[in-house]
Amino acid sequence: MAPVPSLLWRSFRVLQVYGANTDVGKTVFTTILCRAAKLRWRKEHVAFLKPVSTGPGNEADDLHVERHAPGVARRTLLQYDLAMSPHAAAKGKLVPSNTELLSSVYRFASRRATHGPGWLFVETAGGVHSPGPSGTTQADMYAALRCPVVLIADAKLGGISLTISAFESLKLRGYDVEAILVFRDGKYDNEQYLRDYFTSHHSITVASLPAPPPRVDSDTDTEVMSQYYEEESNSTAIHKILDHLDRRHQARIDRLDSMRGDAYRQIWYPFTQHKLSSPENIAVIDSARGDFFQTLVPETKEARDINQPALQPSFDGSASWWTQGLGHGNPSLTMSAAYAAGRYGHVMFAGAIHEPALALAEKLLHGMKSTRLTRVFYSDNGSTGVEVAVKMALRAARLRYGWAAGTDIGIIGLRGGYHGDTIGAMDCAEPSTYNENIEWYNGRGIWYEYPSVKCVRGRWIVEIPDALKVELGDDQIFESLSDVFDLGARRSKQRHRTYEEYIELTLSRYLDSGRKFGALLMEPVVVGAGGMELVDPLFQCALVDVVRRSAKLFDTRYQPSTSEPSSSDPTCWSGLPVIFDEVFTGLYRLGRFTASSFLETEADVSVHAKLLTGGLVPLSTTLASESIFKAFESEDKADALLHGHSYTAHPVGCQVALESMRQMQEMEKRGEWDWAKDSDWSGSLGGKTKANLWSIWPWELLDWVSNQVHCVAGTWALGSILVVHMRATDGTGYKSNAALKLQSFLRDGYGDGEVRWNVHSRVLGNVLYIMGSQKTTKDDVVEISDLIRHALVAH
Amino acid sequence: MAPVPSLLWRSFRVLQVYGANTDVGKTVFTTILCRAAKLRWRKEHVAFLKPVSTGPGNEADDLHVERHAPGVARRTLLQYDLAMSPHAAAKGKLVPSNTELLSSVYRFASRRATHGPGWLFVETAGGVHSPGPSGTTQADMYAALRCPVVLIADAKLGGISLTISAFESLKLRGYDVEAILVFRDGKYDNEQYLRDYFTSHHSITVASLPAPPPRVDSDTDTEVMSQYYEEESNSTAIHKILDHLDRRHQARIDRLDSMRGDAYRQIWYPFTQHKLSSPENIAVIDSARGDFFQTLVPETKEARDINQPALQPSFDGSASWWTQGLGHGNPSLTMSAAYAAGRYGHVMFAGAIHEPALALAEKLLHGMKSTRLTRVFYSDNGSTGVEVAVKMALRAARLRYGWAAGTDIGIIGLRGGYHGDTIGAMDCAEPSTYNENIEWYNGRGIWYEYPSVKCVRGRWIVEIPDALKVELGDDQIFESLSDVFDLGARRSKQRHRTYEEYIELTLSRYLDSGRKFGALLMEPVVVGAGGMELVDPLFQCALVDVVRRSAKLFDTRYQPSTSEPSSSDPTCWSGLPVIFDEVFTGLYRLGRFTASSFLETEADVSVHAKLLTGGLVPLSTTLASESIFKAFESEDKADALLHGHSYTAHPVGCQVALESMRQMQEMEKRGEWDWAKDSDWSGSLGGKTKANLWSIWPWELLDWVSNQVHCVAGTWALGSILVVHMRATDGTGYKSNAALKLQSFLRDGYGDGEVRWNVHSRVLGNVLYIMGSQKTTKDDVVEISDLIRHALVAH
Repeated sequence: MAPVPSLLWRSFRVLQVYGANTDVGKTVFTTILCRAAKLRWRKEHVAFLKPVSTGPGNEADDLHVERHAPGVARRTLLQYDLAMSPHAAAKGKLVPSNTELLSSVYRFASRRATHGPGWLFVETAGGVHSPGPSGTTQADMYAALRCPVVLIADAKLGGISLTISAFESLKLRGYDVEAILVFRDGKYDNEQYLRDYFTSHHSITVASLPAPPPRVDSDTDTEVMSQYYEEESNSTAIHKILDHLDRRHQARIDRLDSMRGDAYRQIWYPFTQHKLSSPENIAVIDSARGDFFQTLVPETKEARDINQPALQPSFDGSASWWTQGLGHGNPSLTMSAAYAAGRYGHVMFAGAIHEPALALAEKLLHGMKSTRLTRVFYSDNGSTGVEVAVKMALRAARLRYGWAAGTDIGIIGLRGGYHGDTIGAMDCAEPSTYNENIEWYNGRGIWYEYPSVKCVRGRWIVEIPDALKVELGDDQIFESLSDVFDLGARRSKQRHRTYEEYIELTLSRYLDSGRKFGALLMEPVVVGAGGMELVDPLFQCALVDVVRRSAKLFDTRYQPSTSEPSSSDPTCWSGLPVIFDEVFTGLYRLGRFTASSFLETEADVSVHAKLLTGGLVPLSTTLASESIFKAFESEDKADALLHGHSYTAHPVGCQVALESMRQMQEMEKRGEWDWAKDSDWSGSLGGKTKANLWSIWPWELLDWVSNQVHCVAGTWALGSILVVHMRATDGTGYKSNAALKLQSFLRDGYGDGEVRWNVHSRVLGNVLYIMGSQKTTKDDVVEISDLIRHALVAH
Repeated sequence: MAPVPSLLWRSFRVLQVYGANTDVGKTVFTTILCRAAKLRWRKEHVAFLKPVSTGPGNEADDLHVERHAPGVARRTLLQYDLAMSPHAAAKGKLVPSNTELLSSVYRFASRRATHGPGWLFVETAGGVHSPGPSGTTQADMYAALRCPVVLIADAKLGGISLTISAFESLKLRGYDVEAILVFRDGKYDNEQYLRDYFTSHHSITVASLPAPPPRVDSDTDTEVMSQYYEEESNSTAIHKILDHLDRRHQARIDRLDSMRGDAYRQIWYPFTQHKLSSPENIAVIDSARGDFFQTLVPETKEARDINQPALQPSFDGSASWWTQGLGHGNPSLTMSAAYAAGRYGHVMFAGAIHEPALALAEKLLHGMKSTRLTRVFYSDNGSTGVEVAVKMALRAARLRYGWAAGTDIGIIGLRGGYHGDTIGAMDCAEPSTYNENIEWYNGRGIWYEYPSVKCVRGRWIVEIPDALKVELGDDQIFESLSDVFDLGARRSKQRHRTYEEYIELTLSRYLDSGRKFGALLMEPVVVGAGGMELVDPLFQCALVDVVRRSAKLFDTRYQPSTSEPSSSDPTCWSGLPVIFDEVFTGLYRLGRFTASSFLETEADVSVHAKLLTGGLVPLSTTLASESIFKAFESEDKADALLHGHSYTAHPVGCQVALESMRQMQEMEKRGEWDWAKDSDWSGSLGGKTKANLWSIWPWELLDWVSNQVHCVAGTWALGSILVVHMRATDGTGYKSNAALKLQSFLRDGYGDGEVRWNVHSRVLGNVLYIMGSQKTTKDDVVEISDLIRHALVAH
């Protein structure tokens, strides 16, 4: 089923009417709005939609509208005869899913929109959080439609409170409340307070109309109500409101249309060559929900003629630079952020402790199930987290080996490994396009080439780089990815010994030439920004093992002192501190809490970010072992780890991370990824029966893609990631343009009757990747898989 | 008036009863809770407090409690006879301020607590957002008390919605809702939905009791109600709830008591020598509101005996590492964060645009009133913002001067200048305690010593460092700080020429020795982390002027090409790009939108963070001129500015920053700092009549402190900052301990009858500073000023 676009057309205005409570006059106000719009915009279409109605059918709100606002197109999508909350009224009946209901709403609006300029008022049922038929509350269910809201306030005693709370529930789901309407009431005069409150706090218009006359009997009622509607729909007050709503609609459209140009003139974009860019390349994102952005469909003449939708759903195929875990606009994460903001704002962290920071530290240490990691250091992003890790490791190594301050100490890494954009993190990467032009960049270390894993023609190949074929031998072929990751079986083989010998020999050569190293730093399992390469896990294990047993290599004069932690202590680092940069690969990205588990080893220092906050705000943690921590203890405060940012361990980030970790751990426990773990789905990745390797991307797709040898060099998938290495005639790496055609096809998207949607993806040179969140549904994966097939056939 | 502590005692449980709506049974439930507590904890005190009651006095809720829960201590603080919302009922009457009302609540609770173990139930009026007497809604007004909440749900039609919204309004103000109670209702059965909802979404207990019998007449009512209360206060349901509340209270206390130890074992603190630290040095922060933390008062035997409060207000005297602008727990910032979280979560920024990022960019560019700055680059914190700035400037300089890639290019800065903790930012600072032990640190540049400004014995002195007295002459004395900042008058004087000659001569010496520089980088007006020095603004101006006119010095072969922006273009950089690190000094910290205005000059690159988000979440912007931006344009995508973090321009941060900027600009426009600008208050700083220099710290205090020559070396204040340089016998700088005694006195705090409060401050070696937010009140400044006087007298 196609995702649902937000309800926005350039000359068709859709408003959603919410009530602060039940029985506050939603239908009366909506009827007046419909009738007044009909009077004022005579040549335009005016429509009324009640998606869900409860109560006896002959009292239905759309009949009321028919009677008092004749000429207005109207529809009730679901009618339940019980006068109860829809979820209760629908009990025992077949209820549509939220997506089905939203699709029906969209279809109704879309058809009205093709009639040309006009208005549509969508009336909700009960209060903002009254549950819809599926049980989801309306405020959550309708949020993705992002209709501007007319909120009907409660004029009764207590109504001030209800109105403000209802407003807040809408606001924190990203709704824009454009006007608040209330019946005049001389006794409580909620209007006055609400006017002051919403004007000063939120710059929102508050307006009132006289309350309808009290009910007498049905004949009299019809007559006096007719008169009431006649008067009110002609009142200045309601036309002022309609003018206001019209202006706000136009302002939203104008702003969306001008944003690309304005951004192009004022924003300096990250990683963007502006000379090769243009306003047309900028996606205007109006909102995002779940895995989908709502992006602007730029206006064209043809579009104007058919009053095409102004927004379309775009699958966030880079998971917003690899951050998304629990979907955009996730209400639980929002509530967590808001709670911490309300409870603390930000509070100073040095010399202080607050609950979210402590609880998150505990959760992470516990979740890592590591015997080594005991300490949590907070910073703001992956790059700063890596800088902290490097500071930690180099100090520990320098002190243990007794190297003087100022000694030139490098790191050991992987070719193409990338750890962030601050200078210290950049220095951890070998010279490449990313950094070679940066004035202060100074690659400090050595970087191993490594065997990588790809699926080609349905088989899993461990590719040995050409330059290493003499040392390491030929490519190896495996039946399944599980076999590649079956380290127990592979450790006993010749290839493992070959890896270790090669690693040790190379290292000795550098050490013999006088170089010093202070850490092994790598991204476990996947080299991310450096090209989305799946690294042969056996090679990474070999690297860790060699480094850990080679203390004598790193400093030939080294004699373990009796006072320092013994190398027989399994929690203590040996050889060099091993840093795992799990910024990208950790926290369920690959399907497991920690990527280190794939390597069956533990880091001495471990860096986490991106998914940490489920995809909401920046936060990073650097976890360290006690033996690293102890290296910074002395009587001199200048020996401390001198690093800290103003917002270190900011409560908002910690609270959100806590909720994000909790939810992902719950999902794992509840088996919410079982569909993807099923061996039918994950096929030769592993499936339930094997090494617990799985991916949301089906094996069938992978197999098929890997056979498109006319354009595909190889592919792989793990966890939420799908990677396609395109054949490149212009070389591999960042400068290649080989994946742009596929990217462009995905961006052009897919039409399904009235609804068009597309996939917003990022490329890394000749590599295109698509990444879901941890909430991506099987249905969406199937749809996107289809789109990928179409794209590759057309390639 | 002393700030109000949160209501927490170790063996005295205070609960606040809120209603999802008016008329949902708050009083009935509270009465049952009181009566049941009295039954169960026979030896303990049970009390009832209605801070504000409306409606005829003889129907008052505390009389109801008296009748049906005899033996419970009870009090109504304010009684208004009209049955309306308190703000309306109080109209025309003298109403207490929020702080006065909270103080009364605190005093009542505090006196009850001294009776020993017990319970206090505080019943609110109407719904959660019903306005209190002052007009502030109760949810906002009572938030600082941080009482755990019993929320009474609404059992009527529509009640599900009202209950969830009321809960959300509380949650986003940092309340912990511990239980939700509702009357049983067979018709709508809201209970069932709410139970499922709150259990699965929030792990909150939902329980129900039978509704009270319907009212008949007053005699019968009394009797049947008595029976009802008798039954319900003995019911298993209510005792389960009390047990639950009791356990939650105990868990909160236990957690607070163990947090210091747990943190000490698991957290690796920034800038902290753990060996010199201990659990006792860790402040446990339960919450924060406005300028005050609520910090744990550790348990002592004496405290146990008198049931001392477990929390006390602590003035956040470092403005939480210089971040706080609009106060902790600011509801507007919370709503902004929640709105953006709900609307977008985070969305990918490269190649995309969203409203908060664009609007913030526009607001900043507009607010800077700069003719140069046209571009906004987003990153996560001051340190990354500076790295971006340096990358920008060095590239622009290298290309203009035609230096090869790989050329060793440094920056020009100020001694003690500090720009952040990532390696690239560290490299901008001269070797010092902060960085000299960092393995990869490599100071790249030269750093000028500079004349600094202090108030000593009531007079303003521009101190020339001893080493420069030969070149620059003796200290200068000024009548007022305004005179020091009167650059128009000072530029024409000899001292200005002396500064320029010295700067130029020094620079030539370095350049002659073959060094190359790519930027002038400094913190305008105040060197922050490097020791809170107020720099002579004339010296900074001279530095900028010399650098800008010295293109020929920086590269003797340089010939401006006709194709490049002419040096006569006033928006184009000349000599070297000038970077202002306004991370600390910008955005109203010193009283003005930009610190560059004090220097009457504009930067080519300007970095902002800290106050940018009003003190809530990390975000940084690096603003640049078009001539810097153009340096990165080419046909090669690798020539782009290759920097970007995952959460670049995260919508939550941008939206909060937008609101924060808006509020501060509004405050300025509305003259909300006029009290501090008054010349009586700001005295020889400047005041309204002079150069618009002002500080929240009164001149009278400054004058007095500057005369405490037995322990004070000098002082200054500007904007929200107060700095005291203590006389040090152990040298100045980071390693000195000279300010610790004063810090400790401030931490010991101040007793005002029942309420104790203190000041949480940070020291930088021999310097102690106290920093308010942009919302700090005159009253609080007066109180803290008193405390400072006491401390210095005792010193």
